[in-house]
Amino acid sequence: MLKVDLNCDMGESFGAYKMGRDEEILDFITSANIACGFHAGDPATIRKTVRMAIDKNVGIGVHPGLQDLVGFGRRNMQISPQEAYDLVVYQIGAIYAFAKSEGGQIQHVKPHGALYNMAAKNSSLAMAIAEAVYKVDPSIILFGLAGSELVKAGEKIGLRTANEVFADRTYQSDGTLTPRTESQALITDRETAVKGVIRMVKEGTVASLQGIDVPIQADTICIHGDGENALDFASYISSSLREAGIEVTKIASFK
Amino acid sequence: MLKVDLNCDMGESFGAYKMGRDEEILDFITSANIACGFHAGDPATIRKTVRMAIDKNVGIGVHPGLQDLVGFGRRNMQISPQEAYDLVVYQIGAIYAFAKSEGGQIQHVKPHGALYNMAAKNSSLAMAIAEAVYKVDPSIILFGLAGSELVKAGEKIGLRTANEVFADRTYQSDGTLTPRTESQALITDRETAVKGVIRMVKEGTVASLQGIDVPIQADTICIHGDGENALDFASYISSSLREAGIEVTKIASFK
Amino acid sequence: MLKVDLNCDMGESFGAYKMGRDEEILDFITSANIACGFHAGDPATIRKTVRMAIDKNVGIGVHPGLQDLVGFGRRNMQISPQEAYDLVVYQIGAIYAFAKSEGGQIQHVKPHGALYNMAAKNSSLAMAIAEAVYKVDPSIILFGLAGSELVKAGEKIGLRTANEVFADRTYQSDGTLTPRTESQALITDRETAVKGVIRMVKEGTVASLQGIDVPIQADTICIHGDGENALDFASYISSSLREAGIEVTKIASFK
Amino acid sequence: MLKVDLNCDMGESFGAYKMGRDEEILDFITSANIACGFHAGDPATIRKTVRMAIDKNVGIGVHPGLQDLVGFGRRNMQISPQEAYDLVVYQIGAIYAFAKSEGGQIQHVKPHGALYNMAAKNSSLAMAIAEAVYKVDPSIILFGLAGSELVKAGEKIGLRTANEVFADRTYQSDGTLTPRTESQALITDRETAVKGVIRMVKEGTVASLQGIDVPIQADTICIHGDGENALDFASYISSSLREAGIEVTKIASFK
Repeated sequence: MLKVDLNCDMGESFGAYKMGRDEEILDFITSANIACGFHAGDPATIRKTVRMAIDKNVGIGVHPGLQDLVGFGRRNMQISPQEAYDLVVYQIGAIYAFAKSEGGQIQHVKPHGALYNMAAKNSSLAMAIAEAVYKVDPSIILFGLAGSELVKAGEKIGLRTANEVFADRTYQSDGTLTPRTESQALITDRETAVKGVIRMVKEGTVASLQGIDVPIQADTICIHGDGENALDFASYISSSLREAGIEVTKIASFK
Repeated sequence: MLKVDLNCDMGESFGAYKMGRDEEILDFITSANIACGFHAGDPATIRKTVRMAIDKNVGIGVHPGLQDLVGFGRRNMQISPQEAYDLVVYQIGAIYAFAKSEGGQIQHVKPHGALYNMAAKNSSLAMAIAEAVYKVDPSIILFGLAGSELVKAGEKIGLRTANEVFADRTYQSDGTLTPRTESQALITDRETAVKGVIRMVKEGTVASLQGIDVPIQADTICIHGDGENALDFASYISSSLREAGIEVTKIASFK
Repeated sequence: MLKVDLNCDMGESFGAYKMGRDEEILDFITSANIACGFHAGDPATIRKTVRMAIDKNVGIGVHPGLQDLVGFGRRNMQISPQEAYDLVVYQIGAIYAFAKSEGGQIQHVKPHGALYNMAAKNSSLAMAIAEAVYKVDPSIILFGLAGSELVKAGEKIGLRTANEVFADRTYQSDGTLTPRTESQALITDRETAVKGVIRMVKEGTVASLQGIDVPIQADTICIHGDGENALDFASYISSSLREAGIEVTKIASFK
Repeated sequence: MLKVDLNCDMGESFGAYKMGRDEEILDFITSANIACGFHAGDPATIRKTVRMAIDKNVGIGVHPGLQDLVGFGRRNMQISPQEAYDLVVYQIGAIYAFAKSEGGQIQHVKPHGALYNMAAKNSSLAMAIAEAVYKVDPSIILFGLAGSELVKAGEKIGLRTANEVFADRTYQSDGTLTPRTESQALITDRETAVKGVIRMVKEGTVASLQGIDVPIQADTICIHGDGENALDFASYISSSLREAGIEVTKIASFK
């Protein structure tokens, strides 16, 4: 049976600041990317999020970001591969300790925001991140943009990887995402979005904005946890995938 | 044969800021308390310090502090036991990940500065810290001021503990340290300091400022890593202890 | 005609994190306490909040807090008077620069959270804060808990001060607020709250929890900007005060 | 008489971390670029540095940097012009408040590290920074790399500007600095360095690495405050300039 993982960013609250509807979203997803305190999150939030993920049988993921709290880790920074390595190791540790103390374990690592985007294209950063994951625990699964340098680096170093696709984004004929700065970057109609994702999972293909069928591997689908319709969409995509005969299950249980 | 551990705070550099003579001090001590990024330290510094500790066969310790970088974790803060628990779990994770990726493992946890002082007296904070350590890894050794609430909490929860003494501080007749605000708090003569420490280890006794012999258990001795004479003193105390027939060895190898 | 000022904490958003309904609350208040980036707030938020305050003719206030973002400045810290002085001077500067660049000026300073509470009782901290304000600009008005050490320090040093009262808090017979840890600390009935405040302004008296009339000076009333009923209450207290013949106007226009 | 300003970065200590020999360097320079707490510095350090600058009749400068303490503001970040504007306004405020409370005033603004480098080439960032300075106080002098976009932006908006040259760096035939990544970027011989600077001031010309004379305006010369020979070099360049008949005086006193 075809399988796919549904992942969502989580644990982004910070101190008195609340963000996201984590507890409710967790009912629909299978993997949680938990912020580690650099771009978002704090120790108390990590503990609560890890606890909820364990209780709802959702895979625990490390979501390391740049040390840019005020920019939410979304601004590119010129960091060296060594700096990328160090901040990923550190942030894996943060989630590890709470997973361990709550009786769970880390399933995956997915870089956040600018770190994710830079690692998709920059092979040196990608390799540094993959090495950081591998050296802490080679059984951790590395999430990256489908076909990206990060996925390639993970495979090269010997990690299990997951190719990530986006339900609400359009693709270019070279398989990359249409930049957000362009007008047709986002898919706003949810039926179109879900049909596209089902085709990716079933056929391994996505129709580019230019109308060409492009091969793509869809191991895990990224869902957004904020916004008014986040819960509705999470519920809709989850049930639509199941109705299409696709098992929605956490990536660790694929094999 | 009598044994004692020599510990020192390490890894307190931060970004462009250098602090301490870690590499040299590591030649004389047996346990390193490594800052975790809250009151001092950063990911690159943790990595380098862990690496050096492994290479020099020094026990790797977590040195969690309050989130007060500008105050170096030395200012008391009214934190709840839950907050203390969370920040200790988080900081253990930071050191764990680098120890794991460098091929080592955590030997001990010793709270830093204001957290250490508050945990010595406040049994609720002490219990929260001990619980944090225990839940992440019950084989970790907890360091606390000799006879303090922190040591008691560790024993109560089932952790192996180490009673810490200070070579350069005087003691009161109730076994507590003379507050730094008082004139005779510090022992400046190094021979007096070392003789006192040797007596603590051999006889389990310290002469209080008031002239009374007070029972004290000395499992580990705290050495300072900064200051002009830090290296000299580290060398001197280490050789003096050995000459007195005491084995200077890391706490994990006591049993 | 009797006059009173209505103040509210503002500009507490941080990066991607939104807090409070500042724009709407500004329609009802006369003085805004703007967070300065230490316990909350960031440069962009300060700029926008200052701009809105000017546009709505609301007095611009500096709301300095402890450097404890994750604790929202609510946790007491053992800081020295010199440290209090320095962090207040720094934070006044932050608001000054945006007020100046937007064409406005600072009306007042009101410490936040733990700094406010500590300065109400600790005369050394209070004096340090008053001195910081005075040395940057002696025409700034200092807000403090009615009858507190902070108000006394401000008067002593030659600052104009404003005694602040709380509509939703009960008072003790010695004129202090009933601690939040006690069951009857909060007034939940809004009519009772507003009647109490009107009496404070008109008669200079508050009935303590113990039933005794206590003298109190009410120059400015603190309103909360978050919570579901914040806007409703702001509107209600503002109109009730006016109906009672009290002019609601910013503190700078009292004289 | 020919005049030139000597500037140096200052106030880069942070909490327990000490950096630079500010007090001694201040004896030789005429303008101090004081860190504002984003990439380095803290409120206490700003106060002390401003105090020393006033006492030694050195021009007080704002040295705003990116919010990247662990990277010391040296790593490029993709910030928007609005973000650049906001962080410069904020940081001017920090220095303003201490200058005001100590009885001095701001002479100039010089961006730090990555912000300086980005503003030299990126005209949008340069314009945002110039606007920030202008809107807070149009009498402040803006320092930028000689001939850079930042200097052009300052002139365009109506600020007085100062073209900065480096004694220890070589120049390209287009008037830009040789990138540090190239082998001949640094001038290590101090006589060569000082001769070059004197020629820049006297003749308005610098010999490029390629051997071509390039026009350059040298209003202020950047000196480094750390490193073993910092004091020696500061003393040497200062006396050499005077011996060459050039008055070394703070930029504000040029006209």
